[in-house]
Amino acid sequence: MPHIALNSDEPGIRGLLRYRPETARPLSELTEVLLRGPSTLTRGERELIAAYVSALNDCRYCASSHSACAAAQLPGGMAVVEQVRAGPGTAPVPAKLKALLAIAAVVQQSGRAVTAEHVAGARAAGATDLEIHDTVLIAATFCMFNRYVDGLATTAPYDPAVYAAGARRLITHGYRPPPAEPGRED
Amino acid sequence: MPHIALNSDEPGIRGLLRYRPETARPLSELTEVLLRGPSTLTRGERELIAAYVSALNDCRYCASSHSACAAAQLPGGMAVVEQVRAGPGTAPVPAKLKALLAIAAVVQQSGRAVTAEHVAGARAAGATDLEIHDTVLIAATFCMFNRYVDGLATTAPYDPAVYAAGARRLITHGYRPPPAEPGRED
Repeated sequence: MPHIALNSDEPGIRGLLRYRPETARPLSELTEVLLRGPSTLTRGERELIAAYVSALNDCRYCASSHSACAAAQLPGGMAVVEQVRAGPGTAPVPAKLKALLAIAAVVQQSGRAVTAEHVAGARAAGATDLEIHDTVLIAATFCMFNRYVDGLATTAPYDPAVYAAGARRLITHGYRPPPAEPGRED
Repeated sequence: MPHIALNSDEPGIRGLLRYRPETARPLSELTEVLLRGPSTLTRGERELIAAYVSALNDCRYCASSHSACAAAQLPGGMAVVEQVRAGPGTAPVPAKLKALLAIAAVVQQSGRAVTAEHVAGARAAGATDLEIHDTVLIAATFCMFNRYVDGLATTAPYDPAVYAAGARRLITHGYRPPPAEPGRED
């Protein structure tokens, strides 16, 4: 049960976005730009970074949701997502993505833990400065979302079909704030 | 020296906002809503939560910047900010704020670490659900900003006068994305 009285029974971030439309708007826009906006990283690759960081933070809702989005948009599907979550070092993904996932794992621990060597490793594998920037910001953003979703004890379904359906909706419509409606009691 | 080539020599988050205007817009809007938008928490109290979490994450730029903003808007000024950073339990702040700072400290560790007892403690001290929500989201948001700023090794001035001047600018103009201009090399 969530720690606060929400104005819907929607799970995870969805209930929080509905509860606080003022913050839902920039949060949705940030996610849309980072995970689906123009980029030399594919949408599947960016969802994979989000899923991996969320799994490291042990956030079941976000990890399940973004794993489903990554699986639906990556060659190799859920098998590859699961291999990355088990340890990207040996997963069958390109060297550049592997190096970016390594940076994301360090960011999950602390921004201060990212070294010039991590960045040089990604660059040597072909990553651009903007790809490195976006990887750091995606990882940092999911350190936020994971804390937001779990810090308020939102609910998270267990059925993978729920997340697969959510992924289809997100892939079709993108990350958008919920429509405005009569809201919370302040 | 930052890990990537930025398009300005601005320190901390400012250089990153200028580098990536597409993410600067929602990040600035999120900060403006959370720290300065309508709320039953004062602007000084919200800046104090941001400063405290940034200090726990050892992010010198964000901790200095938001400490200056908090000091300029809180009764007691920098002396109180420093006492909170040293340990809110014994700092001369109201019980409700103390309980919210305790929640923020837990969120800094992990969203999953927030218990019903933490939330009940804040409620017993007079916190509303929306104040608890915003505290969790402010703490989570600074876990993002701190990782973003330090994960890309942005520079951070040492001179407190720089942060005091920045605080005056933020208090007057708010959190806004930098004006658009010729940009980064992708």
